[in-house]
Amino acid sequence: MIIVMEPKTDEQNIQRVVKYLENKGFKAVLNHGDVMVVIAAIGDKRLIQPEAINSLEGVREVKIIQEPYKLASREGSLHDSVYTFPNGVKIGGLERPVLMVGPCSVEKDFQGLMDVAAAAKEMGCQFLRGGAFKPRTSPYDFQGLEEVALKYLRKAGDATGLLVVTEVMDTLDIPLVSDYADVIQVGARNMQNFKLLKALGKSNKPVLLKRGASATIREFLLAAEYILSNGNEKVILCERGIKSFDSSFTRNTLDLASIPVIKKLSHLPIIVDPSHATGRRYLIEPMSKAALIAGAHGIMMEVHHDPDNASSDGAQSLSIEQFRQVCKNLNKLIGRIEYDNKLQKELVKN
Amino acid sequence: MIIVMEPKTDEQNIQRVVKYLENKGFKAVLNHGDVMVVIAAIGDKRLIQPEAINSLEGVREVKIIQEPYKLASREGSLHDSVYTFPNGVKIGGLERPVLMVGPCSVEKDFQGLMDVAAAAKEMGCQFLRGGAFKPRTSPYDFQGLEEVALKYLRKAGDATGLLVVTEVMDTLDIPLVSDYADVIQVGARNMQNFKLLKALGKSNKPVLLKRGASATIREFLLAAEYILSNGNEKVILCERGIKSFDSSFTRNTLDLASIPVIKKLSHLPIIVDPSHATGRRYLIEPMSKAALIAGAHGIMMEVHHDPDNASSDGAQSLSIEQFRQVCKNLNKLIGRIEYDNKLQKELVKN
Amino acid sequence: MIIVMEPKTDEQNIQRVVKYLENKGFKAVLNHGDVMVVIAAIGDKRLIQPEAINSLEGVREVKIIQEPYKLASREGSLHDSVYTFPNGVKIGGLERPVLMVGPCSVEKDFQGLMDVAAAAKEMGCQFLRGGAFKPRTSPYDFQGLEEVALKYLRKAGDATGLLVVTEVMDTLDIPLVSDYADVIQVGARNMQNFKLLKALGKSNKPVLLKRGASATIREFLLAAEYILSNGNEKVILCERGIKSFDSSFTRNTLDLASIPVIKKLSHLPIIVDPSHATGRRYLIEPMSKAALIAGAHGIMMEVHHDPDNASSDGAQSLSIEQFRQVCKNLNKLIGRIEYDNKLQKELVKN
Amino acid sequence: MIIVMEPKTDEQNIQRVVKYLENKGFKAVLNHGDVMVVIAAIGDKRLIQPEAINSLEGVREVKIIQEPYKLASREGSLHDSVYTFPNGVKIGGLERPVLMVGPCSVEKDFQGLMDVAAAAKEMGCQFLRGGAFKPRTSPYDFQGLEEVALKYLRKAGDATGLLVVTEVMDTLDIPLVSDYADVIQVGARNMQNFKLLKALGKSNKPVLLKRGASATIREFLLAAEYILSNGNEKVILCERGIKSFDSSFTRNTLDLASIPVIKKLSHLPIIVDPSHATGRRYLIEPMSKAALIAGAHGIMMEVHHDPDNASSDGAQSLSIEQFRQVCKNLNKLIGRIEYDNKLQKELVKN
Repeated sequence: MIIVMEPKTDEQNIQRVVKYLENKGFKAVLNHGDVMVVIAAIGDKRLIQPEAINSLEGVREVKIIQEPYKLASREGSLHDSVYTFPNGVKIGGLERPVLMVGPCSVEKDFQGLMDVAAAAKEMGCQFLRGGAFKPRTSPYDFQGLEEVALKYLRKAGDATGLLVVTEVMDTLDIPLVSDYADVIQVGARNMQNFKLLKALGKSNKPVLLKRGASATIREFLLAAEYILSNGNEKVILCERGIKSFDSSFTRNTLDLASIPVIKKLSHLPIIVDPSHATGRRYLIEPMSKAALIAGAHGIMMEVHHDPDNASSDGAQSLSIEQFRQVCKNLNKLIGRIEYDNKLQKELVKN
Repeated sequence: MIIVMEPKTDEQNIQRVVKYLENKGFKAVLNHGDVMVVIAAIGDKRLIQPEAINSLEGVREVKIIQEPYKLASREGSLHDSVYTFPNGVKIGGLERPVLMVGPCSVEKDFQGLMDVAAAAKEMGCQFLRGGAFKPRTSPYDFQGLEEVALKYLRKAGDATGLLVVTEVMDTLDIPLVSDYADVIQVGARNMQNFKLLKALGKSNKPVLLKRGASATIREFLLAAEYILSNGNEKVILCERGIKSFDSSFTRNTLDLASIPVIKKLSHLPIIVDPSHATGRRYLIEPMSKAALIAGAHGIMMEVHHDPDNASSDGAQSLSIEQFRQVCKNLNKLIGRIEYDNKLQKELVKN
Repeated sequence: MIIVMEPKTDEQNIQRVVKYLENKGFKAVLNHGDVMVVIAAIGDKRLIQPEAINSLEGVREVKIIQEPYKLASREGSLHDSVYTFPNGVKIGGLERPVLMVGPCSVEKDFQGLMDVAAAAKEMGCQFLRGGAFKPRTSPYDFQGLEEVALKYLRKAGDATGLLVVTEVMDTLDIPLVSDYADVIQVGARNMQNFKLLKALGKSNKPVLLKRGASATIREFLLAAEYILSNGNEKVILCERGIKSFDSSFTRNTLDLASIPVIKKLSHLPIIVDPSHATGRRYLIEPMSKAALIAGAHGIMMEVHHDPDNASSDGAQSLSIEQFRQVCKNLNKLIGRIEYDNKLQKELVKN
Repeated sequence: MIIVMEPKTDEQNIQRVVKYLENKGFKAVLNHGDVMVVIAAIGDKRLIQPEAINSLEGVREVKIIQEPYKLASREGSLHDSVYTFPNGVKIGGLERPVLMVGPCSVEKDFQGLMDVAAAAKEMGCQFLRGGAFKPRTSPYDFQGLEEVALKYLRKAGDATGLLVVTEVMDTLDIPLVSDYADVIQVGARNMQNFKLLKALGKSNKPVLLKRGASATIREFLLAAEYILSNGNEKVILCERGIKSFDSSFTRNTLDLASIPVIKKLSHLPIIVDPSHATGRRYLIEPMSKAALIAGAHGIMMEVHHDPDNASSDGAQSLSIEQFRQVCKNLNKLIGRIEYDNKLQKELVKN
């Protein structure tokens, strides 16, 4: 931590900060500049509140040097984290990028879901996604079929061999969702629902954590740290667009540079959801390709058997036919990436 | 709802949209322009998903005309909502603006809390605020004293006659918090925790709903609608700063124009929290004054008996001495506002 | 400047940074932490490119400690800058806050402009504002009457005794505008038109510099520094709203906390333009009051003799009648502020 | 244009709007809804100020239906615009994506520039870029070598056969820059310097227009419209990152979805500048690949012969050696895109 003192602050203030730091077990190194004094505090940041120092007399600014998360950081794990599911599917590192496919909300028409799942399986996808509990901005919008939806998902997953991903919105629902899902999703709006994150940290299910619409990368990794530090080491990150000043033509702004940035900072797998990020069907293919080539470990996309009549997010869902075409194009790119990854694995080995 | 068709789309697509609308009980009025057709859909917006229409062939854009919330809107209540607490304190409308004062987190030192409460009471404040459950960005930061803190708050509230405001973070904790608090706060990070909002809608305690850091005004009022539409009509809104591209000198950007905007759109009381909005102690006084003169129904501010050693947010907390000075200045302004409000009440009566 | 090295970077990289700094005349102080080395570079920041250091091997981050502007900073001038115009009007410091009033664009109807000017004078305003060269987002919108408008403004200014403020958009037009205006305005879109800023630095007219819609406070003060460092010490800052994710109910987000922040960082006067910030007529009064009470040295607002037929920005312009009412209310507040300022002046003297 | 009236506004207000529209040559179609009246105004939007209508009594909101630019839109040109330079290089449409390479600023060391240019040519790039006039946030940063730099660029361009791209910051400098450059660049900070845009509209040189850091896509295309509507039909757009709330790890947020969005709205070529967008060297390769696969017509990137000692933006510049490696990888992808484009051209022909 670096503490910058106000120009011309008096010696007494400086000594007060030094004492404060030493009391907390820090070593304080003073740098007398021409204009101001800068104090380097050496020790474990997590033992201290930077704001507490900030409030001491004569302190201009406190700058954090070390990233505040630990288990989520590259220092937390030497190697990229790769999770292997019971059916052999892997996610992360140099494994083949995965595809998660399904409707925004699971609806009453089970056959529709089955049709999507069958097409997904046939096209080589690994996961079936679908909402049972739906976080909707308006209380008057469709809120999800809850347990019925979970049963449908499990049934369609078992029938096709796809793994099931679905969202949980409340700590109370974790046991129920865990009975049906292979991966539990935390939605963007709940990224800082810390009670939920802690409770999922006690779970043994992998957690797919979506980036909040206004979460910085640091806040995103700190949210992951909540899960990791409570004991669950299987966290999959998901970039799904951030809020910006322009939402005329896309719902959010997909922050694709976050993929290589997060891969540099963290060992956790990260996937991209172009459907929610853009809110536009025609952008799913180009943004999926861009995400994959930028290094994403997978893509989550919305596919519906009848988008015109979807309960939610029809405009950003692909029809099954459209999905087949998009997926065919993505599979070509995924094949090339898998090939390059294999070469790189060989290099690492030798 | 207005449906704008793509230029030169064929008649068939237009008829499909018309049929779709009519099936949902809407009346469709066509406007043939030189370049494109615009369809006005007349009916209850809440019966239809705009995205569903958006996904129909040939549709360029769907524009919502009516605000999507109802109970929170001016149409939902003819008069400004004013809530009266059992001790006679009122909030909203043309009542005297209120002050909510206390530490960010309640800490082990009960006497410290009592000192703050006593000063608050003496200066004419109405509410004691303090965190028992703390939503912290990092899992390594102080997470709150939970029930101990609730007991302290109640005790200090009872001793001074102040009403108690404290945050709940999880549906499971609502009964516990309700046992101690007069007002239940929903933090900015939970503004779209819809399960929590619904559960609070079933509660009979007034809810203080903070605006999410990236919530639009529309999303903010829709979050209030979740509580209102579940039966709890006592919602107090709180503006506490939004995220912007500049956080060098203030933590967030305080959106003060939201006060008159929301007062135009809604009948609900709205207060301002300049402590969280700016994160800087020296900004509390000018921003509180600005908020009050812009029409806020109250101010929530952080005061700590020993900010240098606060468990959280010391840099934005006033010491008791500073608070007395700030409050003295605010009270002058509040007195003038109360006087003007009385004149206005007389006018309305006559 | 603080240079944070990567954890476990080798000694050679550290020595390279030290050498680089010493070659540029800096003193380098090393702080060996448990995890990483932090180098404090002491010297004149302006002799070095932080990016250059950032690009050296093993450097994780370069943190600027001192604000990069100098003449605009509190270190640049001990006292608040107050400018006195030939007619005795003063702006800045503890002087009575000023009002700048007029139409967005000057139009063909000279009498309309005269009516606005006469009302402004009568209500105690000091400045007449109006656009001769208009920066419009669309090339098909009205672009301004240019020299004709300048003549009108001068004539109306002379007739009423108001000072004239008008915008210049291009270095080529500075001589022409200088012939007519008392204050030259730089619009938000030109805040980083550095050629224009430099040329105005050579002018002897006071410059009203508007904050860019996405300019940080630091960038804003650096833009002022361009003018100051080229020799013109009369810069008036103007906050006029920044872009945020929500523009449904206001055109921009008025950043009122920037007023006390900038007054802390800089000695320059700062005013607020609520008309452009909000784009809504009904918000001018509450936001003007909030700005004044937060410490603004003046308000610039749009008034038009016939807003329904204005060439630009009618929706945010007050009619003359509305203006009289708003101004009456503002004058009460200004009177109180003037009184408080006088007390403070006395205190400073004694 | 759609005019939404306030609920329960009286008939008189509605008739006033209708009359106003008809006076301006519009046809007004009324839709009487249950709650409010919506008026569809049919005619040429550019003849009217939406704000003017907005300011009429009883009007709640004016919604623009048609995009306000015309020449830049798909309606402005049936086919993708492709520009062919005298040396046969093409940009736009289904042509091979181009690469623009060079230092941020041209410096005194001509040989360094030549080394970059020679490497660029050898790797198959088409353009040499470099700054002669530098828009710098601080007046104390390097401001560019001006005409000397222009001469160097021309000389290096002629020696290698590369086309020269360089920025102009002021209308006064257009003739000078035109003497040396093949493409004139407008920087992000000048995107709404309308005088400059108009003057470039009279030029016969292709203009590379960078998106402003807080410009919406609509504002971006309107800026292009300024150039196009003044007679210059050769505009190349460039996405270079927008401001967001997170700048800890990247300078700006690269908005890659803007590529397919703009290609849908406009016929103009669009390239991407990952160097300025991210400000980080290691992000250039992944973001260039992502941009190309998302459909960009080219990439502009910063390469410096000695980044550690660059006058500006060293941290985001590739060394010549790094550039060769990155370019080798990009060329593979460009080859594949060229192949796919050829297939598509064949399809279009047949």
